[in-house]
Formats: sequence, structure tokens, C-alpha cells
Amino acid sequence: MNTHSIVTVDLDDRSYPIVIGAGLLGGDFDLSQYVAGPDCLVVSNETVAPLYLQPLRAALNGKNVSEVILPDGEAFKTLTTMQSIFDQLVATKAGRDSTVVALGGGVVGDMAGFAAACYMRGIAFIQVPTTLLAQVDSSVGGKTGVNHPGGKNLIGAFHQPRMVLIDTETLATLPDRELQAGLAEVIKHGAIADAEYFGWLEDNMQNLLERDAACLTHAIQRSCEIKAAIVAEDEKEHGRRAILNFGHTFGHAIENSLGYGEWLHGEAVAAGMIMAATLSGLDSGSQDRLRSLVAAAGLPVAPPAVAAGKLADAMRMDKKVAGNKLRFVLLGDIGDARVTEEFNDAVLEQILAGA
Amino acid sequence: MNTHSIVTVDLDDRSYPIVIGAGLLGGDFDLSQYVAGPDCLVVSNETVAPLYLQPLRAALNGKNVSEVILPDGEAFKTLTTMQSIFDQLVATKAGRDSTVVALGGGVVGDMAGFAAACYMRGIAFIQVPTTLLAQVDSSVGGKTGVNHPGGKNLIGAFHQPRMVLIDTETLATLPDRELQAGLAEVIKHGAIADAEYFGWLEDNMQNLLERDAACLTHAIQRSCEIKAAIVAEDEKEHGRRAILNFGHTFGHAIENSLGYGEWLHGEAVAAGMIMAATLSGLDSGSQDRLRSLVAAAGLPVAPPAVAAGKLADAMRMDKKVAGNKLRFVLLGDIGDARVTEEFNDAVLEQILAGA
Repeated sequence: MNTHSIVTVDLDDRSYPIVIGAGLLGGDFDLSQYVAGPDCLVVSNETVAPLYLQPLRAALNGKNVSEVILPDGEAFKTLTTMQSIFDQLVATKAGRDSTVVALGGGVVGDMAGFAAACYMRGIAFIQVPTTLLAQVDSSVGGKTGVNHPGGKNLIGAFHQPRMVLIDTETLATLPDRELQAGLAEVIKHGAIADAEYFGWLEDNMQNLLERDAACLTHAIQRSCEIKAAIVAEDEKEHGRRAILNFGHTFGHAIENSLGYGEWLHGEAVAAGMIMAATLSGLDSGSQDRLRSLVAAAGLPVAPPAVAAGKLADAMRMDKKVAGNKLRFVLLGDIGDARVTEEFNDAVLEQILAGA
Repeated sequence: MNTHSIVTVDLDDRSYPIVIGAGLLGGDFDLSQYVAGPDCLVVSNETVAPLYLQPLRAALNGKNVSEVILPDGEAFKTLTTMQSIFDQLVATKAGRDSTVVALGGGVVGDMAGFAAACYMRGIAFIQVPTTLLAQVDSSVGGKTGVNHPGGKNLIGAFHQPRMVLIDTETLATLPDRELQAGLAEVIKHGAIADAEYFGWLEDNMQNLLERDAACLTHAIQRSCEIKAAIVAEDEKEHGRRAILNFGHTFGHAIENSLGYGEWLHGEAVAAGMIMAATLSGLDSGSQDRLRSLVAAAGLPVAPPAVAAGKLADAMRMDKKVAGNKLRFVLLGDIGDARVTEEFNDAVLEQILAGA
């Protein structure tokens, strides 16, 4: 018998549970109870499928399960790759009552979710995230989509999953670099919304890096709670949800300047958070704490060297541009974030020039 | 000063007007009042743009207007063509406050609307339909999307426009065959929801074919009213909205069997309505009236000759398959439609075998 905890994302008739536990895949957890119709399409990638597709199939016992295995990497998060998911849905004669199951990291989840959003104008999907980043961030909240050469996630949809299944044991096979990248979003949750959690992370970063099971489970649960509460308040990001983009305006510009896949998303966000903290005019003690925690997680505290002007150009194209004004998420304090179009232009220039 | 009438599609905070009038484009109708931000992207095709792009630009006076001109035809209603719309949105640095304006028939409207639905997870769009079919059907109700080789409109989204502008004078340049195809949907509206309107169509079909301005305006307005009322009741097609698919399960199978573009959508729907009326077991007097009206509009009353089994196969893949059961819209009487999974299998076999 597996023990697990449940975090609920509260969205009226689209509310759903995030089920968190160790060994849910390949244990006796019955995932098929969340699949309404007889058919599922599992979307995974070449790295994750050999590890977890069989246990997932076991958890879907009694359903007709077919699969599509995508190449691994952010570079493949494109409309072109989406076509292969649609082809497989059509080939298996998927109907309105079919369910798409995403097994993998954020790239797989974003594409599988977007395919589910578009196929027949919307069918059910389930997230089974296997990276820390996907578990604490991308699998929760219904943002789906693909990249365009002009910008990250420029093409997509809001489409909430029916449930999210997080088996913390899948983190055992995650490369260190990806674990660290996931910790960037974990740090972000503390920084924007929960000073106490931020303090806990300062005390436990070494344990997290050593993959202490209890510590990882606590971080995943607390991060999901924070994200779920923010999403429940503002599902379509008309306002407060944008605080989840702390570090992301800079981060996306970094990713876009380098070309997707050079830096991991979490690495770019990590450097982006330091840049955003500088732009915030945060007191130096708090800036030091953020910098130290990011460094302790093994993450970059400064952007990479790119050609002058490149970051600024990429930023202007960032999707958070609204009405031709740049918007940033800035911190008043650790645990206190706001979205604003008001910032010090001279400081922004300095930050971008230093890149 | 142009006179025009307005039909409202009542969808709470997504309600919008359908503005109908002669000479609205190139008159003094100010379309820019419906464009929130400073930027528009007009999506049109090679046939329509030379005729109406300049008048549309005049109506958008004061806005930054860019454009993307697609190849003309159902064969180009694909994800691949969508890419060029996204490329142009990115190239013009379109933001969250940009508006996509669809100028053309159903193919242009469906693709432009789907691009607007997906770009930055949803920006505003406006429909300026220039074919009768688009004016009375596809531009109203928020269904957007593209075809997949496995089925029509298999990939798409619900995304309501901010307004629909119908200039009835655009019908002056519409080829006869396309006018007739649009009349199939007009006949459908009478057949499913309004026996009196059906009678009016019987009396006025010749006037409509001769493009009598007053008759066309009345038909467009009444058809929009009928469709708007049905959409307002059931936006996402969980139930009653499906009656708008009368003739479409057969029609899509015809289009899919022949290859998109061989028959026009309206032609396939016309033959499909006759087939659906037969499956309905409608009294022979009413069946004769429907057949006569379809024939009077110059539309086919029987499906094309295709290989045995091909229509049946195509039908099984049709997106109206739910839970592996075929659903049909059947008529109890002229003006009275219902959606059902109950039908006479033997009669269906006969209908398909006769194809």
C-alpha cells in the first residue's frame, strides 16, 4: 500500500488533484480510475520511456494504452513535433473520450497538454511529471504550448489536466543538472510567496541536493501548494498569477539569446531571479540571501556572455510584453512579489549591459 | 451613412455583435472601434485580398495594419499553413493586445481564429467573412481549427471573435458555386430550427440565387440569429449545439473520402442532409420538400460515387464519434432536430451502400 498526499488545484468544475507519493508508479496505485474512457495515449520521450513506460502501463491496467515517443529536448518543442502526436491520435482513432497522458518533463507535458487541448478542440489529459521542474512547476496550472523561433511558449493554450501524478522515486534517475534546474523554481516559490519556506530551503538545500526523500517530498508538496493557490486565484494570468514569472522575463531572454537547450530553463530562471532582484532594488541582505541560496543549489547567479543588445532584443519579444511595455515581477522582500511596469530604466540598462 | 443591423451572440463576458450591412467595407463604418490595441494582423488569401484588403484597411484607419496572404483553398487548411500566420505575428512583434482580423471565407476564418486562440495562449480576433458560407455559419460561434489528413477540423480550439463584420456587397464577387454552397447551411438552419424560415426559403430560393440584396440580407440575418441562439445555449457543444451538425456526419465523410476540396463543404453538407433525412425516417412529404429545396439551390441531392466502404470508414473517424458510438442529427419534422445515437443500422447500411 502506497501512502500519498494530495494537493487540490481549486478551479470550480475543472478542479483536480495532485497526488504525491514515493513509488506510485509500479506500486498498487490505480491511475486508471482517473481515465474516463477506454483509451489513453501516453506521450513520452526516448529518455523517460525506457525507465517508466512499463510501470505507467501497469498503473493504467484495464485501459487500451498506445504511445508516442518523442525525441528528447527543448529543441523539439515545436509545432512540427506536435504533428506526430496528432498523427498517433488519429492512427489510434482516438475519440472525444480519449485521454492523453504526459510522461516526462516539462517539454513532454507542455506538448502533450497542448495536443490534448487542440485535438477535437479539447480532450482530457493527465500529467505524470518525472523531473523536479515539471513536478513543482510546469505540470501544474494548465499552461501548455510550444516554442517559436521568435520566443518561448509563444503558441499554446490553457488546458487543465484531470489530475497530476507525482512519483517522487522518478527523481532517482534524474541527472544532477536537471535536479538543480528544478530547484530554481522551488527557490522561486519561496522568494515570491513564502519567507518561511525560503528559510527552510536555506536550511535544507544540501539535503535536497543529496536527494533526501523526505526533504524532496516536502519541497514538492509545498511548491505545489503555493503554485496551486496562485493558479486558483487567477487561472488565465490576468493579474496575480504573473508573479510566478519571477526571473522569467530575464530567463526567457537568456534562453532565447543562447538558443533553446544551451542552458536549462531552470538555470536561466536562476540567473534571471538574481537580475530581477537587482532591478527590484531589494535590500542587500535579502539580495545576498537569494544569491547564496541559488549558488548553494549549484545554479548560475549571472547571465551568460552574449553579444551586446541581444538580451534586450530578446526581452522585447518576450510574451510578457503587453501594450509595448515591459513588465517585470519584482520583490519588495523575500516572500513578497508584485507585477509592475514601473522600474528603473537606468538599472535595467546596467543589468543588460553587464550581460 | 451605412445602415446596418446587429445580431448579438450572447455569451456573458464574451458576448459579441454580428454587424450586417451593405457596403460596410469602404463605406464610413469604423471597424477600428472594435480593435483594443494599436496593432492588427489581417489574414486573407490570394483571391480575396486583391478585392477587399484596401477597403478593410480604410475601415481600420488609425491602426497599425500588417497582413499575411495565404494560398486559397481547403487543401491549405493545415498546421503547416498556420506556421506562416505565427511567423508574421512574431515578425511584427504582435503582443497580447494585438488583434487578428480574418478577411475571407471559412478556411481563412478558421485558421486566423485558431492562430489568435494559440498565439500567446489567446489574443483578440475579428471575423470579416466574404463568402455566404462563412457569413451564415463558420464565422459565428467560435469554432476554429485546421484539418488533419485523418479528418476535418480535428485540430482546433473554441475561441470567440470580438465582433463579426458582414458586408453583404462582398457576395457580388462570389462565384455561383460558392454562393450555392453557402445556401446549404442556410437551408440547414431552416430544416433544424425554423419551419417558417424554411417556407420562406422555398418561396425565395430563386431570388437568392439571383442575389437579390434584400433577400440575401434577410437570409443572412435570420441564419445568424438561429445560429447565435443555439451557440448561446451551448457554447462548447456539450448538447444541443450539435444540431448544427445536421448533414455534417455524412458531409464530412464525403469530403474526407473524396479528398478535401473536390466537393465544397456546402455541397457535401447538402447531400449529407438528404442522407440524414432518410436516416431520420422523415415523412415522405417533408423529405421531398428538403430534396426539392436543395435541388432548387443547385446543390447535389446524393453523395458522389466512391469505393465501397470508404464513406463508412471515413465516418467512423469523424470527430462526432463519441465513446465509439456514431451520433447523428435527425429530424422529427422540418424545423425540429435532435442529436441521437439511436438510429436504424439497416437503413444506415443502405444509405452508405448506395453511395
